[in-house]
Amino acid sequence: MQLTQFTDLSLRLLIYLARLPEPGLATIAEIADYHQISRNHLVKVANSLANQGFIMSTRGKGGGLQLARPAYAIGLGEVVRRTEQNMNLVECFDIPSNQCRLIRNCFLKATLYEAQRAFMTVLDKYTLADAASLGANTELSSLPVADMPPLT
Amino acid sequence: MQLTQFTDLSLRLLIYLARLPEPGLATIAEIADYHQISRNHLVKVANSLANQGFIMSTRGKGGGLQLARPAYAIGLGEVVRRTEQNMNLVECFDIPSNQCRLIRNCFLKATLYEAQRAFMTVLDKYTLADAASLGANTELSSLPVADMPPLT
Repeated sequence: MQLTQFTDLSLRLLIYLARLPEPGLATIAEIADYHQISRNHLVKVANSLANQGFIMSTRGKGGGLQLARPAYAIGLGEVVRRTEQNMNLVECFDIPSNQCRLIRNCFLKATLYEAQRAFMTVLDKYTLADAASLGANTELSSLPVADMPPLT
Repeated sequence: MQLTQFTDLSLRLLIYLARLPEPGLATIAEIADYHQISRNHLVKVANSLANQGFIMSTRGKGGGLQLARPAYAIGLGEVVRRTEQNMNLVECFDIPSNQCRLIRNCFLKATLYEAQRAFMTVLDKYTLADAASLGANTELSSLPVADMPPLT
């Protein structure tokens, strides 16, 4: 059970931008260097995020990437839905390609749908500002995440 | 966001066995033929399920695979936890291999943990008997899953 590396990098790029002081501009090279990620890989991620309307790109000297909306207006559920290329938990979620013969009388699919909805409902509660720790987030801060280091 | 094919096939095998009349025995060849899955692939899945204590194997004529416990005593959450080889939604879930520099002051991880817990909490409500439609399941039958065909 994993999100794709593409989603992972998309979220890292967005969090990086969300934390910048105004006007919140950064270059691909700067972000790639910070995250030790291939610049080519990050270009693909940035293009996708720009196409989805999460970031915008300014060319020329002093240009770079910046959020297209305030961080508090970017939902984490929205980002994951748009960056995950495959939300089909199992084969039968995709009717055209499904080969499973159990589908006509199997409740597993309904169970997995319900679980996926629960997953996305949690992400829909939070925004990029929450993930970047820029907003008050009492729900998150009360979570018993033992290996979560304190804020620095 | 996908479960592995290994988990998908594990669930299919278990559902197949759960639906058999007593004594609930089936051969690998029979299940592979029904699901049109490679026999070698299914052997690996069956060995894993046997090692995890979900099924048992009887050798010889009249032998085969059968559930090691009643279907109502096999939780779907338990199956997914044991068959998914990687529950690390994103890189930072695995501390030893994490390369993300945001980890020390990032709430994304806590958000994703909460979402994953919500996902597993749903699966923990249901058993193999529910998935195989062998038990009363009013919660599932009330789900608005539009593309779920009626039971045959």
